[in-house]
Amino acid sequence: MISGKNYIGNQLSAKGIKTYKTFNPQLNIENNPIYTEATKEEIDEAVSMASNAFKTFRSTSGKEKAAFLNAIADEILALDSKLIKTYCSETGLPEGRAMGERGRTVGQLRAFAELVQEGSWVEATIDTAQPERQPMAKSDIRKMMVPLGPIVVFGASNFPLAYSTAGGDTAAAFAAGCPVIVKSHPMHAGTGELVASAIIKAAEKTGMPNGVFSNINSSGIDVGTQLVSHPGVKAVGFTGSIRGGRALYDLAATREEPIPVFAEMGSINPVVILPEALKSRGEALAKTYAGSIMVGTGQFCTNPGLLLGIKGDSLSHFIQNLSNEIIKIEPTCMLHPNIIGAYERNKQKALSQPELTVVADYSSDVKSNYARQTVTTVEGATFLNNTSLHQEVFGPYSMVVQCESAEQLEQIISKLEGQLTGTLIADENEATHYPKVIDALQNRVGRIIYNGVPTGVEVCPSMVHGGPYPASTDSRFTAVGINSIKRWVRPFSYQDWPNNLLPNELKNENPLNISRSVNNKQTTDTI
Amino acid sequence: MISGKNYIGNQLSAKGIKTYKTFNPQLNIENNPIYTEATKEEIDEAVSMASNAFKTFRSTSGKEKAAFLNAIADEILALDSKLIKTYCSETGLPEGRAMGERGRTVGQLRAFAELVQEGSWVEATIDTAQPERQPMAKSDIRKMMVPLGPIVVFGASNFPLAYSTAGGDTAAAFAAGCPVIVKSHPMHAGTGELVASAIIKAAEKTGMPNGVFSNINSSGIDVGTQLVSHPGVKAVGFTGSIRGGRALYDLAATREEPIPVFAEMGSINPVVILPEALKSRGEALAKTYAGSIMVGTGQFCTNPGLLLGIKGDSLSHFIQNLSNEIIKIEPTCMLHPNIIGAYERNKQKALSQPELTVVADYSSDVKSNYARQTVTTVEGATFLNNTSLHQEVFGPYSMVVQCESAEQLEQIISKLEGQLTGTLIADENEATHYPKVIDALQNRVGRIIYNGVPTGVEVCPSMVHGGPYPASTDSRFTAVGINSIKRWVRPFSYQDWPNNLLPNELKNENPLNISRSVNNKQTTDTI
Repeated sequence: MISGKNYIGNQLSAKGIKTYKTFNPQLNIENNPIYTEATKEEIDEAVSMASNAFKTFRSTSGKEKAAFLNAIADEILALDSKLIKTYCSETGLPEGRAMGERGRTVGQLRAFAELVQEGSWVEATIDTAQPERQPMAKSDIRKMMVPLGPIVVFGASNFPLAYSTAGGDTAAAFAAGCPVIVKSHPMHAGTGELVASAIIKAAEKTGMPNGVFSNINSSGIDVGTQLVSHPGVKAVGFTGSIRGGRALYDLAATREEPIPVFAEMGSINPVVILPEALKSRGEALAKTYAGSIMVGTGQFCTNPGLLLGIKGDSLSHFIQNLSNEIIKIEPTCMLHPNIIGAYERNKQKALSQPELTVVADYSSDVKSNYARQTVTTVEGATFLNNTSLHQEVFGPYSMVVQCESAEQLEQIISKLEGQLTGTLIADENEATHYPKVIDALQNRVGRIIYNGVPTGVEVCPSMVHGGPYPASTDSRFTAVGINSIKRWVRPFSYQDWPNNLLPNELKNENPLNISRSVNNKQTTDTI
Repeated sequence: MISGKNYIGNQLSAKGIKTYKTFNPQLNIENNPIYTEATKEEIDEAVSMASNAFKTFRSTSGKEKAAFLNAIADEILALDSKLIKTYCSETGLPEGRAMGERGRTVGQLRAFAELVQEGSWVEATIDTAQPERQPMAKSDIRKMMVPLGPIVVFGASNFPLAYSTAGGDTAAAFAAGCPVIVKSHPMHAGTGELVASAIIKAAEKTGMPNGVFSNINSSGIDVGTQLVSHPGVKAVGFTGSIRGGRALYDLAATREEPIPVFAEMGSINPVVILPEALKSRGEALAKTYAGSIMVGTGQFCTNPGLLLGIKGDSLSHFIQNLSNEIIKIEPTCMLHPNIIGAYERNKQKALSQPELTVVADYSSDVKSNYARQTVTTVEGATFLNNTSLHQEVFGPYSMVVQCESAEQLEQIISKLEGQLTGTLIADENEATHYPKVIDALQNRVGRIIYNGVPTGVEVCPSMVHGGPYPASTDSRFTAVGINSIKRWVRPFSYQDWPNNLLPNELKNENPLNISRSVNNKQTTDTI
């Protein structure tokens, strides 16, 4: 049963008076459960419990953390069809997508469990003493990564599982040894509560300290503001809009003790289609890209919102083909009336710009909350001079920019804001003729793709999901993959520390048998 | 000869009208050379040249960067006595210290040269394709670290070589592939210009692009503000006061594109002396700590400004011994009249606090710019309730806090701001009785030291020089050691990228023979 209450540590709590409901966009009606927004008192209690839990959780062994993470995965699977149904009722997304996202979420939790169970992720580095060194003896110094403290996670509207309650941010924080307070996304508060209950069960079953996790309901901005301002909170993870992410970043930066905010925000994911590729397989590309623009009703952070080509017949044919293909696809439901409202507003804003041509606009009747896909085109010079055209239109919308030349193409790419991804479509050997275009693209993105589509983010160690601002607030980290743990840890040195007081990761006998750098050599040897 | 001009790329330039001189604190007179502050035009030119230089410098090979870094070290050594004399005339520090710091600076440059020549630092990570995977083919994804772009470095007043023009921040940035613009410290503008000339010579000799380095004169805050606000600047390194570092951090956070600021700032470096150690070797400890407080006239970031013990006869004796020992030491010169002015002001502010007792205060006449050392003591409860006593007094000043109990000791440590270091002085097995004290201390610092002194920062891979705010603005990085390169790089992914277009670090044949993670296995194998 969904209670509509907050989890303050292991306890359900609903002391507030502000309530709200979630919405079923497929049926265009509100869902039944009533959620109670957390009070300031409940928020303070959650942070205080997290700070206390941190005292023990931060030195919890990798094996114990792995058991916790795996138990969360098990408990999420045990929620079974209840979770899938709630997910679908709160998002309008199909069951297959819900199950796929659940699989990814569970996979992420298990990947972090494996990482911390193995243990070498702490980057143990040991420089042994040189008491005879001249002119000064050298101390024994040993370093490893340690957790930052309580983390606040803001779930994403578009990924209620993989980027929300027990998503990548939370899994990485737990793996690091950081307690987590989730600011539940109001659009999928029920999904959030179910997943929260799975985390709480797992924490209890595996003996984690009470307060290691809380789930805070909220429908406005006050709760998030209080959480990010709280002195007990040590870092923030966010996935969502530029406006939301930047507001949290600004808030965190003005605290007495500023804290890191990793926000993964907007991106229009430029796709550069080189002339020969366009000529030889423009039709197939049009079909592929129509699909990529429409996947998840265009509600992916990696949605290709900007296609760049060099003017000519091939590009004109491509635009025509893309338009034909995309109109063939049946419109699908967006996540929430607010999301489709924003889509329509932002699209109208784009369409009202001078010298922009609409080439495809789904015009048949659609059900409530179903999005009409749109493709537009502009000249390179127009795009270059009107930066409002560079803004994301979140949804099934894309713009084709017709550049005058390779030089203008390069110039346009250089002027783009930071992006999660950039894609290059080229025929064999064609790319070698465009080194400046490729260089420019690399400098604006976190991931570059060759002859593919940007939608779809593989969860693996070599993935970067992030990029220069505003794709993220700090390009030095990724939000996806095991390296995302680095957002929540800091290096810590022990100097001349007695072996028996060192953490196991740094002891002479290497009891965890992890890979360590000892006097600049990577090894599992004892000392 | 010192020209007093800026280096805008390889060119000396002095278009401004605002001038200033440096000061010899030993002689209490101004030095002769006249420095011209950079104009807005010169700053824009330096950033523009750095952005251009980045286009080639970011893909310069490790071997070439190593040649550049080693050439800088060689050119610094070639400056010989001219550098040492200028250094001493601008700081009042003795020749031995100048030579020691030069040795460390050259050592850092060569360590980074070795790091990039070897090449594995880029953390190359490769996940090969699985075209047959169900339900979806897996792409080939390859990741490595790439540089952020032009970096602005603010040199430190107290380390004109090791933390300034060609110091750790600059060496790490060059190693990463980032052009550097140094905001020269006005107190040692001559030392700065000489080192800048060495960098320029090295850049020319090793064929680095013009603009890879600029040295900007400045006596106030305007130049720094312009640099940090400039859209072409992508990150900032700073060593200095909390006020200065925080101002830059705030400025960077309010840019349209916020950028990372790594500022290493204040710290009072708490030292916990446990009762048995105090009893068995209080006298020796008093002598050691008198020396540690006085080293470099107390002008080290790791100066022990706070000694914590549990009330009793042993602590009283220790305070008496520390007072006797510190008064025996001859006062030494501070860096600049402004520094000694701030020392006296901050000390008087501390001394004016109620319930604080002065136990040692050097009262004989001292030469101009020589600092009088002072030791004070307070009750634990007083310290706990008066956070103005927690503030750093930069100079030869330390305070002994007499705690009522181990519980109060733990409480005090938990309430401290973030620190670069924490030190524990304990007899054999004594530490095991104070797990909460040690836990609390670990949670507030970047480095913890056992039975030593915090002064002295070894340059080695396991060193952390940083810590929770306000020790630094981002505890996730270190300012010292080869890992400080991580401040200036970001991860970057290539998806299905053709082998011939990949950087050498990620090519199948592993031409650089670096250690890479291939499908989760660390190896130098080809693919």
